[in-house]
Amino acid sequence: MKSLAETDFTIIGLGLMGASLAAALRPHCHRILGVDQDPDALHWCYAQGWIDRGDQRLEEAVSQSDVIVLATPVRTILTLLETISQFLRPGTIVIDLGSTKARICEKMEHLPAGVEAIGGHPLCGREVSGARNADAALFRDRLFVLVPTEKTSPRALGLAIQLVRSIGARPKLLDAATHDRLVATSSHLPYLVACTLVAAASQMTDPDNFLWHLVASGFRDTSRLAGSDVQMMLDILQTNRPNILRSVKTFAQTMNDLIRILESEDEARLKTWLEYAREERRRHLQ
Amino acid sequence: MKSLAETDFTIIGLGLMGASLAAALRPHCHRILGVDQDPDALHWCYAQGWIDRGDQRLEEAVSQSDVIVLATPVRTILTLLETISQFLRPGTIVIDLGSTKARICEKMEHLPAGVEAIGGHPLCGREVSGARNADAALFRDRLFVLVPTEKTSPRALGLAIQLVRSIGARPKLLDAATHDRLVATSSHLPYLVACTLVAAASQMTDPDNFLWHLVASGFRDTSRLAGSDVQMMLDILQTNRPNILRSVKTFAQTMNDLIRILESEDEARLKTWLEYAREERRRHLQ
Repeated sequence: MKSLAETDFTIIGLGLMGASLAAALRPHCHRILGVDQDPDALHWCYAQGWIDRGDQRLEEAVSQSDVIVLATPVRTILTLLETISQFLRPGTIVIDLGSTKARICEKMEHLPAGVEAIGGHPLCGREVSGARNADAALFRDRLFVLVPTEKTSPRALGLAIQLVRSIGARPKLLDAATHDRLVATSSHLPYLVACTLVAAASQMTDPDNFLWHLVASGFRDTSRLAGSDVQMMLDILQTNRPNILRSVKTFAQTMNDLIRILESEDEARLKTWLEYAREERRRHLQ
Repeated sequence: MKSLAETDFTIIGLGLMGASLAAALRPHCHRILGVDQDPDALHWCYAQGWIDRGDQRLEEAVSQSDVIVLATPVRTILTLLETISQFLRPGTIVIDLGSTKARICEKMEHLPAGVEAIGGHPLCGREVSGARNADAALFRDRLFVLVPTEKTSPRALGLAIQLVRSIGARPKLLDAATHDRLVATSSHLPYLVACTLVAAASQMTDPDNFLWHLVASGFRDTSRLAGSDVQMMLDILQTNRPNILRSVKTFAQTMNDLIRILESEDEARLKTWLEYAREERRRHLQ
């Protein structure tokens, strides 16, 4: 079994995630080939020394490495798993960085015999995107969820854990269903809440839009995620819809409870509710 | 008419706002007396050179200054306007820093004859509180809303504008009803949205609370305001309830629209909705 230092990687997709992975992983592996349809992303990553060669053709890049990393939006990963399967040699390990895992890991199980595969999700989103915003420190101290599939050999799992540790992240094994259920609340719900806040404020602004001048840091932070890349988020929403609907409906129900408390003019009850939210956040997030 | 440099101030309430005002204003005025029930806040502000004298007695501090600044939570300001009215000399100017304005400005109009008064609201909340977190730069480049009342003479308005400019903020005149309606959406709604997000996530966590370990910067930012001081927020909610209810209900209705779009599986419509939110935020807040 090759060590990480002897391993050749191909990273498909040199956006924020893929390019940051190349930057963080390059000192620890033997070679990285980068694949992207955007020549600028390839040139940037090559000029930074993050990839050894850039390519726009899948076949070459996929057949020449030990590990293939799929670092595109979720539905492109689903398509790529079909496209590349004919080029994959037995013994190749496939890992992805997609934000939802059930659909991807199910598809991984249909890869050709001898190909190994494991799902991955580094928890380090930013609202900026693209190779030029990439940062080798992006994964530092972040959780990196690994989702073993029927195609995950002990060798593939071991290499994935080495990869995660080499870039400074903390590996955490989860099954795909649990992952998708939890991130629907921890990650996808905040995005939709931020979008709803902006859309609601747009409806309630005054004719001369002065409302937006009154906006201070609170509104800015609460709505920050509404600036996320729409195509990336659409892929997430479309591949995790039932979990996300459940989370959004729970949020809506919780807000209806709050509206009833506000309407009741029961100040003691309102205070208890606000203190509960403050204490839950303090307990879990500080 | 005295210039700002000749003017004596009394600041009642040396929390984050009052103490920051003392720190920012001290180089530009003649004297600042500080009033707070907490000896530590008085000592801290005195030790920093932000106040010339600290006092726990209202009568002395109120009768010896040209301008009285009320820098407590909103309902304490309402009480103070009654308590101090007997000690105010004719010609004294009263200004407040409360986060809602209609109730306060209405009460200001009942101050004794000869006393002048103007409502104020610096838009620079932080989720930390207390004199020890105070910062002379808190108001720098921030909007400072001024709400003239029937008790606002040109002299009082002129002095308030000088005060605002001296601390680096930008004065903006608004009427109390417009102010309260707009901040219900720009400031109070994001707080309640953040609290609802935390409360909803608490309901949807797994038995071993692993959800909270998956939380990345997105959830943290979206929920940050849930850590705000509950008593301060209660005062705001209780003195601006109809506007806040209208904002929260518009938010809830907007979220119901989103739920219907998600359920319809109409991806083009979902994409349009998400792009609208992203574009509105970009256009107004970037």
